[in-house]
Amino acid sequence: MNIVLQTDFSNTWGGVASMKGIIKSVNDSLDIIDLTHDIDKFNVFEASLSLHRVIPYWPSQTIFISVVDPGVGSERLPLACLTNSGKYIFSPDNGSLTHMKKHIAQSRIIDWKYGLRNEGSVFDGRDLFANAAALLADEQITFEELGKEYPVEYLSECEEYSIRPFLELHKTSGFIMTGNRHFGGIELNIKNKDFDNCDFDFGDKVNIVIKNNECILFDEEVKYHKAFSFVSKGKAILYPGSSGFLSLDINQGHFMNTYNVSAGKDYQVIISKKP
Amino acid sequence: MNIVLQTDFSNTWGGVASMKGIIKSVNDSLDIIDLTHDIDKFNVFEASLSLHRVIPYWPSQTIFISVVDPGVGSERLPLACLTNSGKYIFSPDNGSLTHMKKHIAQSRIIDWKYGLRNEGSVFDGRDLFANAAALLADEQITFEELGKEYPVEYLSECEEYSIRPFLELHKTSGFIMTGNRHFGGIELNIKNKDFDNCDFDFGDKVNIVIKNNECILFDEEVKYHKAFSFVSKGKAILYPGSSGFLSLDINQGHFMNTYNVSAGKDYQVIISKKP
Amino acid sequence: MNIVLQTDFSNTWGGVASMKGIIKSVNDSLDIIDLTHDIDKFNVFEASLSLHRVIPYWPSQTIFISVVDPGVGSERLPLACLTNSGKYIFSPDNGSLTHMKKHIAQSRIIDWKYGLRNEGSVFDGRDLFANAAALLADEQITFEELGKEYPVEYLSECEEYSIRPFLELHKTSGFIMTGNRHFGGIELNIKNKDFDNCDFDFGDKVNIVIKNNECILFDEEVKYHKAFSFVSKGKAILYPGSSGFLSLDINQGHFMNTYNVSAGKDYQVIISKKP
Repeated sequence: MNIVLQTDFSNTWGGVASMKGIIKSVNDSLDIIDLTHDIDKFNVFEASLSLHRVIPYWPSQTIFISVVDPGVGSERLPLACLTNSGKYIFSPDNGSLTHMKKHIAQSRIIDWKYGLRNEGSVFDGRDLFANAAALLADEQITFEELGKEYPVEYLSECEEYSIRPFLELHKTSGFIMTGNRHFGGIELNIKNKDFDNCDFDFGDKVNIVIKNNECILFDEEVKYHKAFSFVSKGKAILYPGSSGFLSLDINQGHFMNTYNVSAGKDYQVIISKKP
Repeated sequence: MNIVLQTDFSNTWGGVASMKGIIKSVNDSLDIIDLTHDIDKFNVFEASLSLHRVIPYWPSQTIFISVVDPGVGSERLPLACLTNSGKYIFSPDNGSLTHMKKHIAQSRIIDWKYGLRNEGSVFDGRDLFANAAALLADEQITFEELGKEYPVEYLSECEEYSIRPFLELHKTSGFIMTGNRHFGGIELNIKNKDFDNCDFDFGDKVNIVIKNNECILFDEEVKYHKAFSFVSKGKAILYPGSSGFLSLDINQGHFMNTYNVSAGKDYQVIISKKP
Repeated sequence: MNIVLQTDFSNTWGGVASMKGIIKSVNDSLDIIDLTHDIDKFNVFEASLSLHRVIPYWPSQTIFISVVDPGVGSERLPLACLTNSGKYIFSPDNGSLTHMKKHIAQSRIIDWKYGLRNEGSVFDGRDLFANAAALLADEQITFEELGKEYPVEYLSECEEYSIRPFLELHKTSGFIMTGNRHFGGIELNIKNKDFDNCDFDFGDKVNIVIKNNECILFDEEVKYHKAFSFVSKGKAILYPGSSGFLSLDINQGHFMNTYNVSAGKDYQVIISKKP
């Protein structure tokens, strides 16, 4: 079984390597793969979205450990979950499971008897999650033995998840759901098909305003089209993102850095079709 | 068989992890190693040079996947290549194979029947290259079955590759072929032995000018010697690089950041021996 | 056997991947894990501390290779060490073994007959350490065969290691031993229990001054408490770090960036209890 790790630790210090050591101490032939360790610090919404986007590409039996945990040491529960397609996710119950929740068949509270310290450790990723996941991967314990069941409907959800976009004819607004800090593009919480239903068409020029609270960061006319090749290099483009959400980027540029925008519900985006 | 990945995606989002999931879905015991995911964005020349420098250290049968692809969605062909020493390289035919071309025995156009979407996906690295490479690694298909042969002589080459330096007695010029963004040193497109033939000797003080178009970024006297230890800390040194090309760096400093230089044919370097 | 790599190379170029290729050329089923490749450049003290903190979490038989080597090409010895708990460490003898020294049972000078070039290579990590470690991992040679014994007491130690803090009633001073560049917290060379003995108590407000040579970077009243939750978001806190050393950070902030401090013996910290 493969163990896939996601954290917001970065790999610039020994945090991740300590978790890997714990796993290899259970069985040194377990295979460990990094999903990413560069989730935006303490950003459980990004952690949740990342799991939701990557997990479908992995085979059943894969074990995911996600440790993005602003409340380490607080009361949130350490959970192990089994998805409908037979994959496992270990994570604190702090919103990191928001997007996967509807795909989770069963969740359990990991018993601290599988921990390497007493409850209250400041590094649960290493002292509890890594060890418990490795024991499961090595088939020393079953999923059921990990701890008592916890109703899936109780899993915490990020507030952002339930914010719906505003949709009407030729006008829509939402917020920046996520951004790719490397390539610079952003995705809105507006589904491609909902945008379509507002009667926008490829080739349209639309007006886009981006505000952070009352500060206007972007106010320009942008072409809506299906691929980057429809605008010249350096020009912004609005397009239906491959993950199903309306996306905004600059052809061979970096939208986030250029306009100083970031992801989050405070970044409001208003799109209207020019009459 | 080992699969080695190179991209310009960074590992800050799920792109690389999705490719790994596809590979592990073919056979979860395949071993995946990261060459780097920090190739300069869209820089196929750097991707090509990186493959050329790392591949010799790997055993035959290793499968390399390189996805640096400014033209994703465009017409460049998805290729699988077999080198003379029995290694495999999967890459779009966009210049990424420039340096390895002379070591390639056979190349084939990967058939989209091994793809996970229809042709025209926006993420060929995941939807075509990863899956096809994993099928080969797992011996579910042979190299020949990957697709029809494509003449090696047709492989695209980066324009920079054919630019020759100017060489005469006590004077030479070229461009910055590559730079190490971490340690800060640069390499010129001038071979150590060609420089030698221009009658420069260890211990010489040479004048070096670096220009980006008409802007002069560097104009200083520099010592040419064989190792960093021949100049004091903080001083620039010109030396024969271990990859065979003339190199310029600062002893325990960062040449690229200090002088605001980057790699590319627009960065011209003129070296002359003081009379 | 697992091989764990630590360097200051970053993974943005092919240095690390070349080392991995050499290891896989010995036996392509050897498993290679990254500890980190982001040790502060040329910082052997950080390399040493990192090994000391991560190695305890790994099982016996694990082979660690650490290559942080400002003096590559100079006379420092290439060593292979066996710890008291049966783990192996390959490193140049340049201070990188400072903290592990007391746990090392035996050390040997790696014979260049296991090197891939002649002695004097500029990349010992690849040309000597990687190959020798892989031969040991693959049981082609024994630890004893690696080279002649070198007395453990001769291992180089970083100067910083022997600097003791100043400790008296209600007043103590030391230096910044290490910092987490990602999360931003710093650790002093003052042990939690020594600080305790100076009669500081949880809840105390203490005055902290940080100086870099004569420049004062920080001079504020800070709460000393056991966990972040005892100060509000954005506030500094002094607390007993989980590694046993007194630590300073900002709740959900980045102390190092906020106050422009770094690690090193030039960063002096003076802590006094308000009367």
